[in-house]
Amino acid sequence: MATSVQAVVAHAAHDLRVEPVAAQALGARDVEVRVAVGGICGSDLHYFHRGGVGDFTIREPLVLGHELAGIVARVGDAVDGLAVGDAVVVDPSAPCGVCRQCRRGRRNLCLDVRFLGSAARFPHAQGGFRERLVVDGAQCVPVPPGLTLERAVFAEPLSVAVHAVGRAGAILGRDVLITGAGPIGMLILLVALHAGAGSVTITDISEAPLRVARRLGAQAAINVSEPAALPPVEIAFEASGSEAALEACGEAVGPGGRIVLVGLLAPGLVPIAGNRMVTGEREVVGSFRFTGEEFRAAVAMLGAGLDVGPLLSGRFPLASSLDAFAAAGDRDRSLKVQLQFSDVDPAAAR
Amino acid sequence: MATSVQAVVAHAAHDLRVEPVAAQALGARDVEVRVAVGGICGSDLHYFHRGGVGDFTIREPLVLGHELAGIVARVGDAVDGLAVGDAVVVDPSAPCGVCRQCRRGRRNLCLDVRFLGSAARFPHAQGGFRERLVVDGAQCVPVPPGLTLERAVFAEPLSVAVHAVGRAGAILGRDVLITGAGPIGMLILLVALHAGAGSVTITDISEAPLRVARRLGAQAAINVSEPAALPPVEIAFEASGSEAALEACGEAVGPGGRIVLVGLLAPGLVPIAGNRMVTGEREVVGSFRFTGEEFRAAVAMLGAGLDVGPLLSGRFPLASSLDAFAAAGDRDRSLKVQLQFSDVDPAAAR
Amino acid sequence: MATSVQAVVAHAAHDLRVEPVAAQALGARDVEVRVAVGGICGSDLHYFHRGGVGDFTIREPLVLGHELAGIVARVGDAVDGLAVGDAVVVDPSAPCGVCRQCRRGRRNLCLDVRFLGSAARFPHAQGGFRERLVVDGAQCVPVPPGLTLERAVFAEPLSVAVHAVGRAGAILGRDVLITGAGPIGMLILLVALHAGAGSVTITDISEAPLRVARRLGAQAAINVSEPAALPPVEIAFEASGSEAALEACGEAVGPGGRIVLVGLLAPGLVPIAGNRMVTGEREVVGSFRFTGEEFRAAVAMLGAGLDVGPLLSGRFPLASSLDAFAAAGDRDRSLKVQLQFSDVDPAAAR
Amino acid sequence: MATSVQAVVAHAAHDLRVEPVAAQALGARDVEVRVAVGGICGSDLHYFHRGGVGDFTIREPLVLGHELAGIVARVGDAVDGLAVGDAVVVDPSAPCGVCRQCRRGRRNLCLDVRFLGSAARFPHAQGGFRERLVVDGAQCVPVPPGLTLERAVFAEPLSVAVHAVGRAGAILGRDVLITGAGPIGMLILLVALHAGAGSVTITDISEAPLRVARRLGAQAAINVSEPAALPPVEIAFEASGSEAALEACGEAVGPGGRIVLVGLLAPGLVPIAGNRMVTGEREVVGSFRFTGEEFRAAVAMLGAGLDVGPLLSGRFPLASSLDAFAAAGDRDRSLKVQLQFSDVDPAAAR
Repeated sequence: MATSVQAVVAHAAHDLRVEPVAAQALGARDVEVRVAVGGICGSDLHYFHRGGVGDFTIREPLVLGHELAGIVARVGDAVDGLAVGDAVVVDPSAPCGVCRQCRRGRRNLCLDVRFLGSAARFPHAQGGFRERLVVDGAQCVPVPPGLTLERAVFAEPLSVAVHAVGRAGAILGRDVLITGAGPIGMLILLVALHAGAGSVTITDISEAPLRVARRLGAQAAINVSEPAALPPVEIAFEASGSEAALEACGEAVGPGGRIVLVGLLAPGLVPIAGNRMVTGEREVVGSFRFTGEEFRAAVAMLGAGLDVGPLLSGRFPLASSLDAFAAAGDRDRSLKVQLQFSDVDPAAAR
Repeated sequence: MATSVQAVVAHAAHDLRVEPVAAQALGARDVEVRVAVGGICGSDLHYFHRGGVGDFTIREPLVLGHELAGIVARVGDAVDGLAVGDAVVVDPSAPCGVCRQCRRGRRNLCLDVRFLGSAARFPHAQGGFRERLVVDGAQCVPVPPGLTLERAVFAEPLSVAVHAVGRAGAILGRDVLITGAGPIGMLILLVALHAGAGSVTITDISEAPLRVARRLGAQAAINVSEPAALPPVEIAFEASGSEAALEACGEAVGPGGRIVLVGLLAPGLVPIAGNRMVTGEREVVGSFRFTGEEFRAAVAMLGAGLDVGPLLSGRFPLASSLDAFAAAGDRDRSLKVQLQFSDVDPAAAR
Repeated sequence: MATSVQAVVAHAAHDLRVEPVAAQALGARDVEVRVAVGGICGSDLHYFHRGGVGDFTIREPLVLGHELAGIVARVGDAVDGLAVGDAVVVDPSAPCGVCRQCRRGRRNLCLDVRFLGSAARFPHAQGGFRERLVVDGAQCVPVPPGLTLERAVFAEPLSVAVHAVGRAGAILGRDVLITGAGPIGMLILLVALHAGAGSVTITDISEAPLRVARRLGAQAAINVSEPAALPPVEIAFEASGSEAALEACGEAVGPGGRIVLVGLLAPGLVPIAGNRMVTGEREVVGSFRFTGEEFRAAVAMLGAGLDVGPLLSGRFPLASSLDAFAAAGDRDRSLKVQLQFSDVDPAAAR
Repeated sequence: MATSVQAVVAHAAHDLRVEPVAAQALGARDVEVRVAVGGICGSDLHYFHRGGVGDFTIREPLVLGHELAGIVARVGDAVDGLAVGDAVVVDPSAPCGVCRQCRRGRRNLCLDVRFLGSAARFPHAQGGFRERLVVDGAQCVPVPPGLTLERAVFAEPLSVAVHAVGRAGAILGRDVLITGAGPIGMLILLVALHAGAGSVTITDISEAPLRVARRLGAQAAINVSEPAALPPVEIAFEASGSEAALEACGEAVGPGGRIVLVGLLAPGLVPIAGNRMVTGEREVVGSFRFTGEEFRAAVAMLGAGLDVGPLLSGRFPLASSLDAFAAAGDRDRSLKVQLQFSDVDPAAAR
């Protein structure tokens, strides 16, 4: 058994290294996954660019990565239902099960969660951009027949979108605005259309993703780098992290409507139209990550054919991770960029 | 039949007059109420002090008043279930029944509502601070046996509190913060305790109402004119209209918690802690007025003995309305100030 | 102005006549619609076959019909936004706006509703299978551009399906069972797929509609005239009115799941598995009609292309109404049968 | 360390023994509780009387008991926040945390739960009617200052009532019916009043508990051993397990109302009024156990003074367990009967 594996490790802002890290021990309830493909997420980019995300800062070398799919390589003695060779996608979230939020069923808000590749706790929860990864067997979800790994690995950000749409309440027949056409905004677009939204308008300040959004079925995809009028809607998803976009959501949402905050905003206070909220009973609600059940629902939607293909912009071998991160940061060129960790073909149907 | 009645009419900021206005015609579905007692609301005070409230400005003389109780004097031919001599409390809200919000059951958000004593539409919806008032029979709710008119007339602001508590979702056993110990904040305190809140903390910058709040059962009543630490809560009601209070709500509410905005805030944008909302899935929701069913529930709660007595600070005859408005505006002296419009005894049990 | 129009009048069980009835007066808020096309509903069939529906019996001649589309012929003085010549679909429901249920926003449960073509009140609310129909202007919804009248008229039963799906709660990604492949079951199938159900299984005892269901996208369409195993689901819609189907729903729905009762059942008591409900916290909820907003959402869905075409089995001229009712009652031949009341082409796009 | 402790063991119907059982090993995350007092629940009585409860039958000797309070005797190495000598009440429920229901936050429906003193799984989950009990530290909730153990131990059935009231939705100001005045029905009465129900009517066929219900604040307590008219309500809790009571709930609940099933019913199918459910959109929902957060809320309510004292009918020493079970089964004499397991005084405030 190899005692070390290659991994993508963030040491500080702009100090990202591909280097060996120690192989992980396999507990009785664990599974070792030979990682095949990983998606680079906005938070990975934040760790790379500024050495932290939100309020969390890297305090020790951190293996990045929480969008992961691969092949089961070893199975602990107490694990049922998984076998060596199975293709799986990894749920990066392991809630504690005993805190106040877990006790009331808000497991995505677990106060003591272990989330792969996150500096929110110390020692950090090391991530999955590595050749081999050990996780609890309960975090491994089989890839449905016919699905490729390069699509299965979208399950994680798709779960974020599924959860966000759930936070919006009834969406069938309702008009929707999405501000921000990055991967999360785009996946919310797909899920909102899939859930029968009456119409979906999406905005961005970059033209390239808006073109993709039109192809995916957005009724309107509006470039707001110039002032633009937005249609009235009942539900808005803020997925850009921009204050101007938040303000636009506040103006577009009608009485009784709801704004779902998905994108992390600037630290501290951000402005909302208070009296419009009172007299129109508008609602602003945060949306954070997803539950394990939503993760499995996302895997099933991908298995049933939800077409995330247009969101995949490119794939780089592990050794070229720095190029991958550079590409992922260029919004005119890229939506979702993937890393490849082995010779398993990510484009082959399972 | 008298062709005019005395009324309290706002002409402009600081121009409030007690003067005759034309008596109103009685339609087949209408009831004429001899008004006995009226409560002065914060919005009445805003019309008095600045000639408007929120975004609405007085454009023609406006009879104020929407907290009203009295005795049925005449009944239209098509009205069932009401008779001359009945003691009634008046629901000031008449939703249109056909707009988008009414069609979906959000009648308190009716886009074409007629609400007594409001400049929101033009011609203005004239109010009920007058000796005789004609309203639709459906707006008259019988006063329960044993209840006095001076208490029954609390039904309107109590409805606002009942609706706000409803907007908070499940409250049983949960810890609650209320910012602002004016009449609405105080009634939310009563309703939250009645609904089984785990604990209620209330804040204000004036000591007098905090003393009353302690008597009403608040577990903590904190003067925030000096910096003060607030306990963590799951639900906050912002009932002061102050940005500092809104910020305090944002800090006090834990993950999964909700802030209900009840008080009108400063015009335009107000600050909220965006990332706390995202990562803790906090929610901010507006609360506006009430439904007719909530109004009737409020009347029933008063009939069952909900003790609003400590909130009644004083009563003035119609002729002394200016004194009444002056008293109502002094938070160190007054909570709820009433006007008396007839010789009917507001303190007699019905 | 003609003083009478031809109408389809139910006098008693099996006594259906095409005969003249008095033309209706036009009030200030009313619109007269030249009816072009009407859909025959299950309740129309019940009036025809047994002289009543549910607990309601015909006590005077009753013009049937509540699925109606046509052309505006006259407009009352107080009606805004509608003009002679407009193509409209008619919302048959006029809630009272003042009862307990309306006050709390459950307008579809209005205790004093006027619903076209119903014997629920006396005098009966006369229906719309007539050449000209007068209704409140608020009940007329413009047909979206490009939609035909023969499709627009599906708005009414589609609203029932939209409401039923709303009663099911979150449906995105969930597995669904529908018992009964009549027009309502079929429209629930369409709406459930449109709302992103994970899979939809539909059952019936007749093969013909099951074939259509497969074409509409059902993952499984099972003939239960022979004993058949049903897959586990999270949501079931009972749309057949059969006790056996209700029992099947109870067995198929897993813990935490919900059964929505849409079809009218046998009078009196029906059996459910009580302990399965307790220990699995299963839920059984009724679903009745729709709100005005849901009606407009249904019209919009049709305008956006929701394909109800495969449900239309045939159309008969007014004079052949008896043939139409005979055809509509034959489940092997028919799903939705329509009546044509004028020379307006129901198949022409508006 | 003693190698055995005395326990109350059910071997079969009517074969209940007080006998030694092996002491339990203490894991790193476990706590050993010296049990002071235990409450006898209806399910304990079922195991005693018929050797099973619902669908579960005793297949090996089963230590009964899941309503438990006591003193911490030993603490595992990995347990935080608990010390020897602490007074605690035990949450009997340990959900698995990984099943489908746990993943979606319905932990009370956990498909693989370990619930103290239950034959639902095999080997059985042994219960807590024993001198010393080892449980996961997360299941031990500190007794609030000033609360006695004899009241703290009501936390478990009170949690069932808190959960049931939560399943009813908004209850503030609504009229409520409870069928069955056993301990659970009585605790629902207390919680419903505490949550601001407009009125509460409770029914039973035994006069003794009805007298207690009146003292606890029920607006009406009706003996239904003779035919009796029940008032219309919006919410009903079925807590008797009787079909006649279920039928009464169905008749009493108005349109839009909800029936919460709490009591286990006769095996198999039970009758409900199907069409009343459809046309009035009535709802029937199961309620099962509680979440850990609800358990803690129940403890806090007891600490804040919720008065369960009138429900305590008697207490027996461990050696007299058979007498205790006999007393608990006599509804004319007993509501809640307790067992005492040590010389710790259950009536002393902590």
